Amino acid sequence: MSKKNSQTIPARVLLGPGPSMIAPRVLEALAAPTIGHLDPYLLELYAEEQALLQQVFQTGNEWTFSISGTGTAGMETVLVNLIEPGDFVLCAVKGYFGERLAEIATRCGAAVDRIWRPWGETFTVEEFEYALTCHKYKLVTLVHTETSTGAVQGNIREIADVAHKHDALLVLDTVTSLGGVTVDIDAWGIDAAYAASQKCLSVPPGLSPLTIGERARQVIEKRTRPVHSFYLDLNQYASYWNGAHGYHHTASSNLHYAMREGLRMLLEEGLENCFSRHKSNAEALWAGLEVLGFPPLIPEFYRSPVLTTPRIPVELEEARIRARLLNEYNIEIAGGFGDLRGKVWRIGLMGHSSRLENVTILLDALKKLIRG
Amino acid sequence: MSKKNSQTIPARVLLGPGPSMIAPRVLEALAAPTIGHLDPYLLELYAEEQALLQQVFQTGNEWTFSISGTGTAGMETVLVNLIEPGDFVLCAVKGYFGERLAEIATRCGAAVDRIWRPWGETFTVEEFEYALTCHKYKLVTLVHTETSTGAVQGNIREIADVAHKHDALLVLDTVTSLGGVTVDIDAWGIDAAYAASQKCLSVPPGLSPLTIGERARQVIEKRTRPVHSFYLDLNQYASYWNGAHGYHHTASSNLHYAMREGLRMLLEEGLENCFSRHKSNAEALWAGLEVLGFPPLIPEFYRSPVLTTPRIPVELEEARIRARLLNEYNIEIAGGFGDLRGKVWRIGLMGHSSRLENVTILLDALKKLIRG
Repeated sequence: MSKKNSQTIPARVLLGPGPSMIAPRVLEALAAPTIGHLDPYLLELYAEEQALLQQVFQTGNEWTFSISGTGTAGMETVLVNLIEPGDFVLCAVKGYFGERLAEIATRCGAAVDRIWRPWGETFTVEEFEYALTCHKYKLVTLVHTETSTGAVQGNIREIADVAHKHDALLVLDTVTSLGGVTVDIDAWGIDAAYAASQKCLSVPPGLSPLTIGERARQVIEKRTRPVHSFYLDLNQYASYWNGAHGYHHTASSNLHYAMREGLRMLLEEGLENCFSRHKSNAEALWAGLEVLGFPPLIPEFYRSPVLTTPRIPVELEEARIRARLLNEYNIEIAGGFGDLRGKVWRIGLMGHSSRLENVTILLDALKKLIRG
Repeated sequence: MSKKNSQTIPARVLLGPGPSMIAPRVLEALAAPTIGHLDPYLLELYAEEQALLQQVFQTGNEWTFSISGTGTAGMETVLVNLIEPGDFVLCAVKGYFGERLAEIATRCGAAVDRIWRPWGETFTVEEFEYALTCHKYKLVTLVHTETSTGAVQGNIREIADVAHKHDALLVLDTVTSLGGVTVDIDAWGIDAAYAASQKCLSVPPGLSPLTIGERARQVIEKRTRPVHSFYLDLNQYASYWNGAHGYHHTASSNLHYAMREGLRMLLEEGLENCFSRHKSNAEALWAGLEVLGFPPLIPEFYRSPVLTTPRIPVELEEARIRARLLNEYNIEIAGGFGDLRGKVWRIGLMGHSSRLENVTILLDALKKLIRG
């Protein structure tokens, strides 16, 4: 029966916007025997996982841990804890996930204003300065790497400085950044950030690492109303992780085994080596895509090395080619959506998926399919 | 390194209130290669998982699936989708988890009334009838097996009838019931129920199976305000699972492999056989505990066969014995908490943990420790 299982699950080459491929070592860690959520061994593991996450986020924040949900749960956790109904929130929207932050902030009861850039562009520092001068906001939300476009926002430290000058917190989405490009929480002055297990960390989906700075913690401590969500209540999470280890929910020991192992692998390679690997494999992909007639949409200056969005000619039946890639070559890439539907593909080279052989396999398959 | 991993994670005999032990076949399924959240193979797996869950919940509800979080996430999902701020909710509280439902309903903005029984007791149908006659409620919350006490609420169908007579929905917590004792959603007339992967289903923690009936779906469809939570929004979940399969969040393929395998195992054994196994192993445990001087707190009439709460003599240093069980025998059991702190242990025989050899191992170790 178990044979049937592993035989029927297809061995995909995962080159979409996540999940990425999982190293055998991490899958093996995942399948170790389950232990209890209050087992002293698991609590020790949390301490190690926290220290590893602090290195990856480059932060000393005590509130640095993985919550029991996906990246969207991490996004919601940060917002639902920081926002009280009636708060003013400024959301910088330059793609799908920027808008998702605005949607969640609205559901939290915030009065949301947006600054916009067309999908595929990024913001200048002046755009934040102007918006924050016009109105007082409690917090500003910003996506570092926009997974819907492949654009990386620059000048994060300057944007954080502007937010702080105007007494606003900066919340940074690092879902498609963490582990693939520099994320420097303390040096940049980020107040709260979250990520996801299944992108550049190459850990199975189900956990969302996040980090909360001192200013943000104080905002949470000064709340006058309880957090809307019990499940995502950070005081309860922190108490379970860092504090008295009281029961809050039954965290998944198996997912944490995998997270620890994935973080160990990343730090054994070294952050800078890992970023260089992502960069050089992306460059090989970009060169190959240009040759095939799919130039990247995003200018190199702010193009993500972990998620590439090649333009596709209008005459190409792009959905058919993606289906053939999956069915005939076992390769997953993703289509564009929203403003970029039908106009780009989204090709991820994240974590364990970022290998030169995967670039070769993909380019080779694409070449055959567009000429076939 | 992977060797180091499996060597350092202790092989516990899990006899607490969950997680339970995971069958090798399920752990092997868990570690199959990760695939994407929109992979056609995963969507097929969802269809199979749904059909299996419908058999286990004994329901034809189309909205039957596993959400990406633990049992507490399932609890919150049901409440946050059914409740709008200002709604009147009646919570039946006879232990910790009944009170947790009241806490979450309050955070959802409900006006919450409670009916109470002391920890370890259950309700009569008349108590619901009286409360529902005094005031009009949108929904009633009830815990089937209270994990803090080991008491199983009877007369669920009659309580559902009373709720419906008064135009209220009945929400049933089946976290510590599903897969261990009869849960008959459609015959009982339950409007919404949720469970957890890591108890009698013996699947690693991280998923919460739930089921939503037609009446409850209509209530969700008639909402005038968006659900507070984006992550736990059931319309979005259902659309991802059953509908157009639009992107909502990156569900964990690995956890779903394990869930499907655990459900397959359960149904290969057969629900009735599985319930009988839980019952007979529990009876062996109860007999052994009586001999050792630890009579179960809960009368046999409504005592759970999956979670036993033996009384412990006041002179016993119970925490020390639990620590020695864990450190010297690798056996996890749990202490009482809340009103039962220091007065009972909580011993689970759930799913793959419900084996006669585990009863023997535990009783033998206890005998040595209390005499040592």
